[in-house]
Amino acid sequence: MTDTRPVLRLKPKADARRIRHGHPWVFADDIVADRRSRAIPPGTIAVLEDAERNPLAAVAATMESRIAARVLDRDPGATIDGAWIAARLGRALAHRKRLYPAPFYRLVHAEADGLPGVVIDRFGEACVIQPNAAWADARSEAFADALTELGLAHVLLNATGRARGAEGLDGETRWLRGGLDASVAVEMNGAIYFADLTGGQKTGLFYDQRPNHAFVAGLARDATVLDVFAHVGGFGLAALAGGAARALAVDGSAPALELAAKGAAAMGRSEEFETRRGDAFDTMAALGAEGARFGVVVADPPAFAPAKPALTAGLRAYERVARLAAPLVEAGGYLTLCSCSHAAELSKFRAASIRGIGRAGREAQLIHTGFAGPDHPVHPQLAESGYLKALTFRMLD
Amino acid sequence: MTDTRPVLRLKPKADARRIRHGHPWVFADDIVADRRSRAIPPGTIAVLEDAERNPLAAVAATMESRIAARVLDRDPGATIDGAWIAARLGRALAHRKRLYPAPFYRLVHAEADGLPGVVIDRFGEACVIQPNAAWADARSEAFADALTELGLAHVLLNATGRARGAEGLDGETRWLRGGLDASVAVEMNGAIYFADLTGGQKTGLFYDQRPNHAFVAGLARDATVLDVFAHVGGFGLAALAGGAARALAVDGSAPALELAAKGAAAMGRSEEFETRRGDAFDTMAALGAEGARFGVVVADPPAFAPAKPALTAGLRAYERVARLAAPLVEAGGYLTLCSCSHAAELSKFRAASIRGIGRAGREAQLIHTGFAGPDHPVHPQLAESGYLKALTFRMLD
Repeated sequence: MTDTRPVLRLKPKADARRIRHGHPWVFADDIVADRRSRAIPPGTIAVLEDAERNPLAAVAATMESRIAARVLDRDPGATIDGAWIAARLGRALAHRKRLYPAPFYRLVHAEADGLPGVVIDRFGEACVIQPNAAWADARSEAFADALTELGLAHVLLNATGRARGAEGLDGETRWLRGGLDASVAVEMNGAIYFADLTGGQKTGLFYDQRPNHAFVAGLARDATVLDVFAHVGGFGLAALAGGAARALAVDGSAPALELAAKGAAAMGRSEEFETRRGDAFDTMAALGAEGARFGVVVADPPAFAPAKPALTAGLRAYERVARLAAPLVEAGGYLTLCSCSHAAELSKFRAASIRGIGRAGREAQLIHTGFAGPDHPVHPQLAESGYLKALTFRMLD
Repeated sequence: MTDTRPVLRLKPKADARRIRHGHPWVFADDIVADRRSRAIPPGTIAVLEDAERNPLAAVAATMESRIAARVLDRDPGATIDGAWIAARLGRALAHRKRLYPAPFYRLVHAEADGLPGVVIDRFGEACVIQPNAAWADARSEAFADALTELGLAHVLLNATGRARGAEGLDGETRWLRGGLDASVAVEMNGAIYFADLTGGQKTGLFYDQRPNHAFVAGLARDATVLDVFAHVGGFGLAALAGGAARALAVDGSAPALELAAKGAAAMGRSEEFETRRGDAFDTMAALGAEGARFGVVVADPPAFAPAKPALTAGLRAYERVARLAAPLVEAGGYLTLCSCSHAAELSKFRAASIRGIGRAGREAQLIHTGFAGPDHPVHPQLAESGYLKALTFRMLD
């Protein structure tokens, strides 16, 4: 195979040890660019060589992208075919089967699972694949075949990923195998959620908060709970499953709140579950003006600082969330604040949250720092990139 | 009360806002030193004032210490008596009762629980108090009374804390109330541990790893487990409770391993639990030479980098642990590496661990980052000080 593949060569100044030590990305600046290399079509499998022409790895090339090559296999001669894809999926599946009793989880988490740019979420016999890199998009049929082999009858290709543009990919979401019209029921932490797979991100379901849902559920016995930016009810329904007396879910999306209410109904807890559609900031301010107090308050906003240019404004927004949420917590109660912003690293997000609580005049202790669950592994060489943080504070006064 | 108390005044250059924003420590350099302030006996309650003589807080003074004053109450006139201590203990207890079904936990975690320098661990009807600051040591009888009121019949004063020297305190460990000869059985995560309270740190029990024990237990079903630096069996017994097929516990301390074996016996799992006394590094090297492989390997060493001067050597030691432990993990198996070093912050400890795994020639994904449990709260202004980290990797090859 190897001899028929194009070759990408590292510049002499590039650090080949980075690749030898397992880094999965090769930046465009580090590759010798000539007419031949520039003509390589996106998604082509190539052999990466160091400046002395020693082969380093089999890579997927997208020369137009800042990440011009992604390491697929440290064996430069590896054949990247259906069997290779099936082996990687099997390795990922074995881990999730050990973690969870039911088939609801992130099955593949991109680079960390050895499938660069590929994200697959499993919902029982259905799954949603996001092939956000050209090599994977070109092989989506092979992925679908391998997933079918694993018993997944319904395979949806979700093409809404932001990274697809940089890889020259289209935005057409479509069923590759089977098809589901209805929303899917998902059991997690004793709660029941509904995921509308074809509705995309806005009414999908995120598995990453599972351990943080569980932590909050463990605090919620007999408590009243406010879940702001509730989406399909992640924290609020988990809290009800954990024994909360009541939960109020606030979100701007009516379809998301409808799915949340459907979950509460499936749990037989409709009477204790209330939804309020509205802007989260306005609703928190209004609740504060009413003097409302809850035993547990959770705010899990969208990414306010997805990338560096948005960092300053994003941190101000996180501080504002904390300042508006803290007054709504009873003395001795709990406040969970989340960030899914890549650019807002833990210490900065924590400082913004602590400032907001202080400006609300509340004294607190930090009792828990959580991240995405173990079905969202992190590549060791990209360990700084963990995006999800959840901080739980207890109010002392 | 206030007018009879000595006054400590901040220097004009000191940042009074730090205290107003809730920081619990005042450094000696920031306080106006004169003959009068230098004569204040350790543990005296004083009023802290800013440079303009505005009272800021009631503080406990130990003028000889680098931390010359610790904030007890943001009300400068607060009376620090038995009722005050009982109120702080009650506030701390309410949180732990919500967290845990059984009375085994860290009841007080110093500054974060509003009791600077005071650590109290609860073992059913017994508890161990470490009054590692002069103000608390002088009030140990009031603490004992308040603890008795809460139903704790046995109160041991543990005087082995390293901080006591700086506070001018003695090292006499003694029972303040009641007394227990035998070791105490502690149920955690379905496992049974034995704690020898009077044996001190070497055979005590640490609650801080509870959530990390639980995480490893969740991976251990049917697996063989190696627990290095096992102490009284923390990870190994939790793994057995989680369904592990066998566990081997390695430690240098014979009394600790005896307590671990006693725990396995109480769980009815003696046949699946083996102990090996020896140096952890030597034992890992020997197991590696034998070609031994385990489904789950855990290394929870003592603090290799308790303070900054030891950081470089400490990080080398953590890397060495990872390098020796990684070869002992089966393909697809799990490796948990822990650090309780204050000075080795998360990113440095993680980098050292990843280097060690790489030098062992293994490819891994990072699936979990854990800290001390929620009965070890962190003061918001000391949030950088979280000392315990547990990283779990999965071996991909």
